[in-house]
Amino acid sequence: MDHDPRRAPAYTAVADRFRRIGVLGSVQSLLDWDTATMMPRGAAGARAEQQAVLAAIAHREACDPAIGELLTRAEAEALGPPQRANLHAMRRRWLHATAVPEDLVEDLTRSTTECELVWRDARKANDFAMLRPHLERVLVLVRRKGEVKAAALGMSPYEALLDEFNPGLPKSEVDRTLGDLERELPLLLRDVLKRQGARPAPFAAAAADRQHQLGKALMEAVGFDFERGRLDESLHPFMSGGGDDIRITTRSTGEDFISGMLAVAHETGHALYESGLPATWRWQPAGDAPGMAMHEGQALLWEMQVARGRDFLGFLAPLVQRELGVHVAAADLVRSVQYVEPGMIRVDADEVTYPLHILLRYRVERALFAGDLAIADLPAAWNAAMRDFLGVVPNTEAEGCMQDIHWMMGSFGYFPSYALGAVAAAQLFQAAERETPAIRQRLAQGDGTLLLQWLRTNVHAHGSLLPTVELLRQATGRGFDAGALVAHLRRRYVDRAT
Amino acid sequence: MDHDPRRAPAYTAVADRFRRIGVLGSVQSLLDWDTATMMPRGAAGARAEQQAVLAAIAHREACDPAIGELLTRAEAEALGPPQRANLHAMRRRWLHATAVPEDLVEDLTRSTTECELVWRDARKANDFAMLRPHLERVLVLVRRKGEVKAAALGMSPYEALLDEFNPGLPKSEVDRTLGDLERELPLLLRDVLKRQGARPAPFAAAAADRQHQLGKALMEAVGFDFERGRLDESLHPFMSGGGDDIRITTRSTGEDFISGMLAVAHETGHALYESGLPATWRWQPAGDAPGMAMHEGQALLWEMQVARGRDFLGFLAPLVQRELGVHVAAADLVRSVQYVEPGMIRVDADEVTYPLHILLRYRVERALFAGDLAIADLPAAWNAAMRDFLGVVPNTEAEGCMQDIHWMMGSFGYFPSYALGAVAAAQLFQAAERETPAIRQRLAQGDGTLLLQWLRTNVHAHGSLLPTVELLRQATGRGFDAGALVAHLRRRYVDRAT
Repeated sequence: MDHDPRRAPAYTAVADRFRRIGVLGSVQSLLDWDTATMMPRGAAGARAEQQAVLAAIAHREACDPAIGELLTRAEAEALGPPQRANLHAMRRRWLHATAVPEDLVEDLTRSTTECELVWRDARKANDFAMLRPHLERVLVLVRRKGEVKAAALGMSPYEALLDEFNPGLPKSEVDRTLGDLERELPLLLRDVLKRQGARPAPFAAAAADRQHQLGKALMEAVGFDFERGRLDESLHPFMSGGGDDIRITTRSTGEDFISGMLAVAHETGHALYESGLPATWRWQPAGDAPGMAMHEGQALLWEMQVARGRDFLGFLAPLVQRELGVHVAAADLVRSVQYVEPGMIRVDADEVTYPLHILLRYRVERALFAGDLAIADLPAAWNAAMRDFLGVVPNTEAEGCMQDIHWMMGSFGYFPSYALGAVAAAQLFQAAERETPAIRQRLAQGDGTLLLQWLRTNVHAHGSLLPTVELLRQATGRGFDAGALVAHLRRRYVDRAT
Repeated sequence: MDHDPRRAPAYTAVADRFRRIGVLGSVQSLLDWDTATMMPRGAAGARAEQQAVLAAIAHREACDPAIGELLTRAEAEALGPPQRANLHAMRRRWLHATAVPEDLVEDLTRSTTECELVWRDARKANDFAMLRPHLERVLVLVRRKGEVKAAALGMSPYEALLDEFNPGLPKSEVDRTLGDLERELPLLLRDVLKRQGARPAPFAAAAADRQHQLGKALMEAVGFDFERGRLDESLHPFMSGGGDDIRITTRSTGEDFISGMLAVAHETGHALYESGLPATWRWQPAGDAPGMAMHEGQALLWEMQVARGRDFLGFLAPLVQRELGVHVAAADLVRSVQYVEPGMIRVDADEVTYPLHILLRYRVERALFAGDLAIADLPAAWNAAMRDFLGVVPNTEAEGCMQDIHWMMGSFGYFPSYALGAVAAAQLFQAAERETPAIRQRLAQGDGTLLLQWLRTNVHAHGSLLPTVELLRQATGRGFDAGALVAHLRRRYVDRAT
């Protein structure tokens, strides 16, 4: 943040505004973490009050007209390229924040909160009719939001939603990359299934506290700093916080340790990214990731590229054995972790079928948003797409179109980040290996620091000073390249080489 | 909060302002709890940022000139007595908040933060000279704060400080009550020491996690609701939060279990009070305790009246034995818990000498504040007062005038709350027993619900709808009455009857 405040007073002032907004956001995030991990159950109402008050304050801060004036003045000031990039990110956030009128914000908050609540019961009861009117209402409001944002940002409504999660990433890039995957992955899946043996036997159950310890051991191995973060338990794993206070969670169910172990690897990937973002830009837009595609990419890099690979699993097997006290041979661990099987549930999917779940959602979501598909017809469209992409059809809507929370929350435009992230992860891992061949050998010893160092330099340190595609190009030599993911999957799941 | 919003629009609006301020305060309190219990060490800087941003927002909200206008308009509206009491409390808070100019607030924050930091090192090094200039600076600023508040509130500067912690409680009441104690307690202490036997042998050490479990068992026995609160570990025990989310901490050191057990009883007393405050007045000034004297009183009621008494200790002994796995006879537990010995450290003091530590501080604090005692002469004055009140003299300033954090934080006027609380606790317990004689028998069975029910009705449910003295009078028939504490202490420590 090296600039002369006297020569750029408006920039200095508006940067301070965004610092406060960033800090407030970190407080909201701490409360979310507390809600999921520590809060006594009876405190839900009080917590909702706290979050509502904080949200109102954050909204007021973010939409203060003074910010608009400062931005305009700052844009005329003499600034270096990083300050200009930061200013650009501020302007984009300001446009997103102020585009939506307050009554629409309130309607959206109320309707999505309600839809989420109904969804929990509807999913349990497998009752799509119960969910339907609520989801219809959410879709109406999300469309309206897309329209007002489209006008403010000068793009199409759906692009405006994509832009919330990956600012500046062109829809054409998304379409090209996901289109390539849509062409290649079904063929690849066929080849994988043709050569694959029988389903491996499950491992013995392990106690929850020992699974938790295993998670911590894994985090330590890949360089997580427990002086600046924690691991706790929650119903769904997530990462929260940033900078010097990064908290991830896992669910040590006491049954299958593998899904918990991979969830820890995933969240640790998010955490390592956050901890490597440039400290000089802390609390500033330029100090954040350039978008969720890159963030999911970092998570998938550690979960998929590293933790599902033979090298690291060779290190993990004895660690698992030590921490859980159950016998686990490395070859059996590889067979289990790398077993591919088309299933109904995205979050349980293996590395090969996971992107297919995303392609399905991207197709359905665009049709819903465009009005080509009514909510009433969603279950049928979902099941048809499942047959197309994965060759299996859900028996219930609970394990079909009602499985994910995203649309209930009004998060249309998020899903592509997962597939783009998987692609970016493959590209980055390949580039890192090319430039630092010792990485694999070190991973086989359980040492992730060499890979981390490469990511720190080539990805993390840039924050969002470069937009996603440019960051990827500088780090790997190319923009999004679905071929890198397909090649990786072929090597691991057809050739059984990694 | 039953009022007609159409007939009292200003009251309705200002109550909503105070609701938001209350909610924000609860967020700040959650962050404090997290800092002491969960936060990774490296996050201290980020936490300071978060607290600074929240404090600035809270200050802006509390001092918004619109509140002043709304208060004046509301005071002319038709309101019932409880609304009027709430409004009265708002006015008082508004006067306290706006009396202090912003630069003085900042100076105080900076100087007390610095003084606290230096104090930690100075106490460790037993270096009063190191602390002196910082404490001098704090005193100068606290005096200035007292002066501006005095002008705003129409009382003397020291009274204005007392008023921060116990609004509306006259200094004459404090002086009368503490004066009575000053006359009676030294005589009582002499009698106690004359009749007391040899120091009992210490109990075997117990593991920290088992002590923690013992704390939980004690909390459950007296009616703490774990659906609305938690027990965690921190360096110093405290209570945080309120309403449906009350979190207390203890320090299970792994050495002496008694101090931890009593600390849990103390913090549980604070917690039970918070949970019994009227839910209809939640987040409103009228829904808070009327002052810290009553709050400490509730804590001391459970710690001193209940947990140090023979009845409840008879129940605790087998519980201790079960939870800690060490043999503890009830008679030995009583002997240990009721052993009286003048010592240097307030927080380690027994029930008889504790108020004497407070009397000393009240005397010294008034002299410092009045300018009759210079900080440079504090150690000598402290030691002289120790000899007067307790008959012992500290060997070092670390175990003398540097032992407490209160003055370092600028908290002048707080200490009397502890002695007033001890008096109120004795009065309330005696009144409860008089009206519900079965309480003692039930406590002997480890059942605190009957006592709790009496407190809920006669104290908790009133929030601060009644000022402290009036609340005490309605519950016990008298205002502060030092004689009740002295009588209790004589019965327990001279007659050895309770």
